[in-house]
Amino acid sequence: MEFLAAAIAIGLGALGAGLGNGLIVSKTVEGIARQPELKGPLQTTMFIGVGLVEAIPIITVVMAFLFYGAAE
Amino acid sequence: MEFLAAAIAIGLGALGAGLGNGLIVSKTVEGIARQPELKGPLQTTMFIGVGLVEAIPIITVVMAFLFYGAAE
Amino acid sequence: MEFLAAAIAIGLGALGAGLGNGLIVSKTVEGIARQPELKGPLQTTMFIGVGLVEAIPIITVVMAFLFYGAAE
Amino acid sequence: MEFLAAAIAIGLGALGAGLGNGLIVSKTVEGIARQPELKGPLQTTMFIGVGLVEAIPIITVVMAFLFYGAAE
Amino acid sequence: MEFLAAAIAIGLGALGAGLGNGLIVSKTVEGIARQPELKGPLQTTMFIGVGLVEAIPIITVVMAFLFYGAAE
Amino acid sequence: MEFLAAAIAIGLGALGAGLGNGLIVSKTVEGIARQPELKGPLQTTMFIGVGLVEAIPIITVVMAFLFYGAAE
Amino acid sequence: MEFLAAAIAIGLGALGAGLGNGLIVSKTVEGIARQPELKGPLQTTMFIGVGLVEAIPIITVVMAFLFYGAAE
Amino acid sequence: MEFLAAAIAIGLGALGAGLGNGLIVSKTVEGIARQPELKGPLQTTMFIGVGLVEAIPIITVVMAFLFYGAAE
Amino acid sequence: MEFLAAAIAIGLGALGAGLGNGLIVSKTVEGIARQPELKGPLQTTMFIGVGLVEAIPIITVVMAFLFYGAAE
Amino acid sequence: MEFLAAAIAIGLGALGAGLGNGLIVSKTVEGIARQPELKGPLQTTMFIGVGLVEAIPIITVVMAFLFYGAAE
Amino acid sequence: MEFLAAAIAIGLGALGAGLGNGLIVSKTVEGIARQPELKGPLQTTMFIGVGLVEAIPIITVVMAFLFYGAAE
Amino acid sequence: MEFLAAAIAIGLGALGAGLGNGLIVSKTVEGIARQPELKGPLQTTMFIGVGLVEAIPIITVVMAFLFYGAAE
Amino acid sequence: MEFLAAAIAIGLGALGAGLGNGLIVSKTVEGIARQPELKGPLQTTMFIGVGLVEAIPIITVVMAFLFYGAAE
Amino acid sequence: MEFLAAAIAIGLGALGAGLGNGLIVSKTVEGIARQPELKGPLQTTMFIGVGLVEAIPIITVVMAFLFYGAAE
Repeated sequence: MEFLAAAIAIGLGALGAGLGNGLIVSKTVEGIARQPELKGPLQTTMFIGVGLVEAIPIITVVMAFLFYGAAE
Repeated sequence: MEFLAAAIAIGLGALGAGLGNGLIVSKTVEGIARQPELKGPLQTTMFIGVGLVEAIPIITVVMAFLFYGAAE
Repeated sequence: MEFLAAAIAIGLGALGAGLGNGLIVSKTVEGIARQPELKGPLQTTMFIGVGLVEAIPIITVVMAFLFYGAAE
Repeated sequence: MEFLAAAIAIGLGALGAGLGNGLIVSKTVEGIARQPELKGPLQTTMFIGVGLVEAIPIITVVMAFLFYGAAE
Repeated sequence: MEFLAAAIAIGLGALGAGLGNGLIVSKTVEGIARQPELKGPLQTTMFIGVGLVEAIPIITVVMAFLFYGAAE
Repeated sequence: MEFLAAAIAIGLGALGAGLGNGLIVSKTVEGIARQPELKGPLQTTMFIGVGLVEAIPIITVVMAFLFYGAAE
Repeated sequence: MEFLAAAIAIGLGALGAGLGNGLIVSKTVEGIARQPELKGPLQTTMFIGVGLVEAIPIITVVMAFLFYGAAE
Repeated sequence: MEFLAAAIAIGLGALGAGLGNGLIVSKTVEGIARQPELKGPLQTTMFIGVGLVEAIPIITVVMAFLFYGAAE
Repeated sequence: MEFLAAAIAIGLGALGAGLGNGLIVSKTVEGIARQPELKGPLQTTMFIGVGLVEAIPIITVVMAFLFYGAAE
Repeated sequence: MEFLAAAIAIGLGALGAGLGNGLIVSKTVEGIARQPELKGPLQTTMFIGVGLVEAIPIITVVMAFLFYGAAE
Repeated sequence: MEFLAAAIAIGLGALGAGLGNGLIVSKTVEGIARQPELKGPLQTTMFIGVGLVEAIPIITVVMAFLFYGAAE
Repeated sequence: MEFLAAAIAIGLGALGAGLGNGLIVSKTVEGIARQPELKGPLQTTMFIGVGLVEAIPIITVVMAFLFYGAAE
Repeated sequence: MEFLAAAIAIGLGALGAGLGNGLIVSKTVEGIARQPELKGPLQTTMFIGVGLVEAIPIITVVMAFLFYGAAE
Repeated sequence: MEFLAAAIAIGLGALGAGLGNGLIVSKTVEGIARQPELKGPLQTTMFIGVGLVEAIPIITVVMAFLFYGAAE
């Protein structure tokens, strides 16, 4: 049961992170294509946003490794 | 059963946080690309919004660790 | 069974709160990007709305902790 | 079984309340951003609407506490 | 089984009421933002509509309490 | 099993009634906001439509009470 | 099992009837708001359409009552 | 099992008929609102279409009654 | 099991036929409302299309009757 | 189990054929309504497309009859 | 179990083939309605595309017949 | 269990290949209808894209045959 | 259970790869149809993107073969 | 159970990575097709975004191999 729990946790986390990052980065690329002179601040905001989005999935990964450790 | 509960809790939390943050940050990037002189107040609002969105998922993480502690 | 119930309760609450807050804050950011001079009243309305949206999920969190206490 | 029932009840209630309130408040913020002089009546209507939307979920919370009381 | 039935009934009722009321009130707010002089008749229609939408969920609540009473 | 059947019947009925009424009333509010002088015939049509939509869910409520009576 | 069958039958029927009638009546209200002088033929068509849509759900109700009678 | 089969058959049939008829009649009402002088041929086409859509659900009803007769 | 199989077969067939016919007939009504002089060829094409769409569901009906005959 | 397999096979086939044919024929009707002089080649292409779409569902029907024969 | 496996395989294949072919042929009909002089190359491309789309479902059919042969 | 596994694998593969190829070929047809002189490079790109999309489903087919061989 | 696991893994991978590649290649075809002189860099970017998208599904294929080897 | 867990983990990861990368690369291709002189910075941002999106799925792959190792 621990393996299944770890798989569900990390799977949903990867799905959420993929969708969230995809939205942010695709909008950033669209913004740079319109106004190339804003490449700097847009990428800065993108990095901040990606970092904030990745926060919970990273903890998900940590927890999945904990489950893996508890099952061995 | 505790591991499964923790996985469901943190998984749904990560999904919700990813979608919510993705919406907010992508709109902020779009706003900066239109009006670069508003980068300051837009980022301030973004940080407030991300903080509010992350509130419940963080508690989700706490609860998942509690479940993990109860299962050991 | 208590752990699973707590996980479902807090998970759905986090999902609802994330989607609701995401809608509100992203619209607020969009509004500020259009009319920066309205930053004050828009943020005030945003805080009221976020507070109203968070009401039920917070009770969800309380109830999940109650379930956790009943299971120990 | 009581815990699971309470979790389903309050979880669906929180989801419904989050979506409903999110729709109302985001439209209100959009309306204020267009016509700032209408901030008063729009917020009044928003409060009425939020109160009406919250009616059933609040009863959901009450019922969940009843279930919790019946399970102890 | 009574608790679960009550939870499903009141949960779906809350979801339906939240979505229905959210649609009505958000359209009303949008209408007032366009034509503020129509605030009176729009709110009157809104109250009638909300009352009609709430009719079945209120009966749902009554039935859930009946189930709760039958289970004790 | 009777309680569960009653819950499913009245829950789906409430969901259908909420969505249907929400569509009708929100369109009526939008119509009044455009042409206030048509408030009378629009509300008349709205009442007819809501009555027709509510027909089956009301029978659903009746049937749910029948199930409740059969279970006692 | 008869109660559950009756509940599924009448629940899906109510959902279908609610959605179908909602589509028809909301379009009729929209049509009257555009051209008030066509209120007569539009309502006539609406009544015909609603009657045709209600045909199968009414038989659903009849069948649910038959199931109820077979279970007593 | 016969009751459940009859319920699934007539329920899906009612859902399909409701959606199909709703699409056809709402488009007809929209068409009459645009060009009132075409009320005759549009209604004729509507009746043909509704009759064709109702063909399979009517057989569904017949089959559900057959199932009901086989179960008694 | 035969009854359930027949119900699933005819139910999915009715759903598919309803959606497909609804699409075709609603487009035909829209087309006649735009160009009334094309009522003839449009209806001819509609009848051909409806006949082609109905082909598989009719066989579904035949098969459901075969299942019914095998179960008696 | 053979009946259930046949029902799933022919049900999904009917659903796919209904949707695919509905898309093709409705587009053809729309095209004829725009340019009536192209009725010939459009119908030719429609017949080819419908024939190609029907290929797999027809084999589905054959296979369902094979299952029926294997179950008797 | 072999029959069920064959049914799932051929059912999903028919669904995928129906949707894919529906997309391609409806776009081709739309393209011919705009520019009738391109009927030749558009149909050629359509045949190539349909052939490529049908590749996997045809193998699905083969595999389903293999399953049928293994079950007899 | 091997047959079921092979059916799920090849079924999902056929669904994915159908949707992906449908998107690519329909866009290609649309592009040729706009600019017929680009028929060559568009078809070349289409073939490359279809080949890349088909890569994983083909392996799916191989694996399904392996499962079939392991079950005999 | 190994076969089922391999089927789920490679099935979801094929679905993801199909959708992702479909999005990328269809956009590339659309871009070439607009500006044929950019065929080179667009195809280069397309190949890079397809390679990046295929990375995880290829590992999925490897893992599925590992499962197959572990089951024999 | 370890194989199933590994399959769910890597399957959801591949799905998330495919969708996220598909969004990013398709937007990049669209951006290059509009402004070819920005090919450099757009590809740079694309690589950064793809790298960030792939982070969690890669860990998913690692974890799936760990599960595979634990099952042997």
